[in-house]
Amino acid sequence: MARWEPNTAIRLVDAALDLFVEQGYDATTVSQIADRAGLTRTTFFRHFPDKREVLFAGQEVHAGLLADALAGVPAGATPLDAVGSALDALTDTFTEDRREFGARLRPVIAAHRELQERAALKRIGLAAAVAEGLGKRGVPEPDASLAADLGVRAFYQAYGEWSESSGGGASLTELTHRTFAELRAALAALG
Amino acid sequence: MARWEPNTAIRLVDAALDLFVEQGYDATTVSQIADRAGLTRTTFFRHFPDKREVLFAGQEVHAGLLADALAGVPAGATPLDAVGSALDALTDTFTEDRREFGARLRPVIAAHRELQERAALKRIGLAAAVAEGLGKRGVPEPDASLAADLGVRAFYQAYGEWSESSGGGASLTELTHRTFAELRAALAALG
Repeated sequence: MARWEPNTAIRLVDAALDLFVEQGYDATTVSQIADRAGLTRTTFFRHFPDKREVLFAGQEVHAGLLADALAGVPAGATPLDAVGSALDALTDTFTEDRREFGARLRPVIAAHRELQERAALKRIGLAAAVAEGLGKRGVPEPDASLAADLGVRAFYQAYGEWSESSGGGASLTELTHRTFAELRAALAALG
Repeated sequence: MARWEPNTAIRLVDAALDLFVEQGYDATTVSQIADRAGLTRTTFFRHFPDKREVLFAGQEVHAGLLADALAGVPAGATPLDAVGSALDALTDTFTEDRREFGARLRPVIAAHRELQERAALKRIGLAAAVAEGLGKRGVPEPDASLAADLGVRAFYQAYGEWSESSGGGASLTELTHRTFAELRAALAALG
């Protein structure tokens, strides 16, 4: 049976990014990624359809974390407070050892249009997951989508700051609290 | 000299969409698109790098319209009022004969992941153009990006409604006024 094994997936992700940084994205093959991870091509393809998707492995996991968290927020929370709780559930999974991943990934994506496009779709997918989760809580549109966009924007901005800074600073959760509070204040002033 | 000729570009865009709808995106070649438009492959490649970009030809033109309009809005306008004026400049260019284009394009994009990704990047590009235009007006971040997102969301929602409805109904400008007003009200309530 094909099974999703998180540790195997992470080994493949790290091996892929190492190779993309060392020798370039275009020059790297699936076989090389599997070799570097000490795994087979067959194992690679049990986890990812191609080398590009390795870089966006987190999308479904992250969308699931956000959806589950939204379902668990107490009734009566405002849409933005519910989004804040969901962001906590997501950002708490970014342990310190993942901090440098984003900083190494960024130039790889910046150099390839197809990766930028894929990244754009990932962001839309996360926002859609949050909007859907708010919808299940009874938040109508367009309120749900606006609140979701604000939360996803806060996460991306905080993730950028977190992954670019050296270790030992604020956690991603703390940074996301800060950016989300700033965005909420800006939203209130804009409206 | 290679020159951008709007009418030639529109002929290629319309020919491409006709063929994508008739025989599928994957089965359509650049040569077929040029033939259908009564033009040569050389002319095609003077306007577009590949068949995919034909579908996103409007991005630079639309971003330019938004940027120019923002530069011309009287000083003192609020960020959201400036965005509203920019949307007018954009939507006024969508004449009635373009109404059905979006409805025919939508299923083609929905059937191809790479086109969805490209569309996501186009939307981000338009929002970035608006945010940059607001920045030049002195609007700070994150206010500029939030206002830009709201405007682009209003445009896309209105464009969806406009292109799905039969002719003779509200203009795209009228629909965009309505969706933008709804989003502004939702934003105020959310904040």
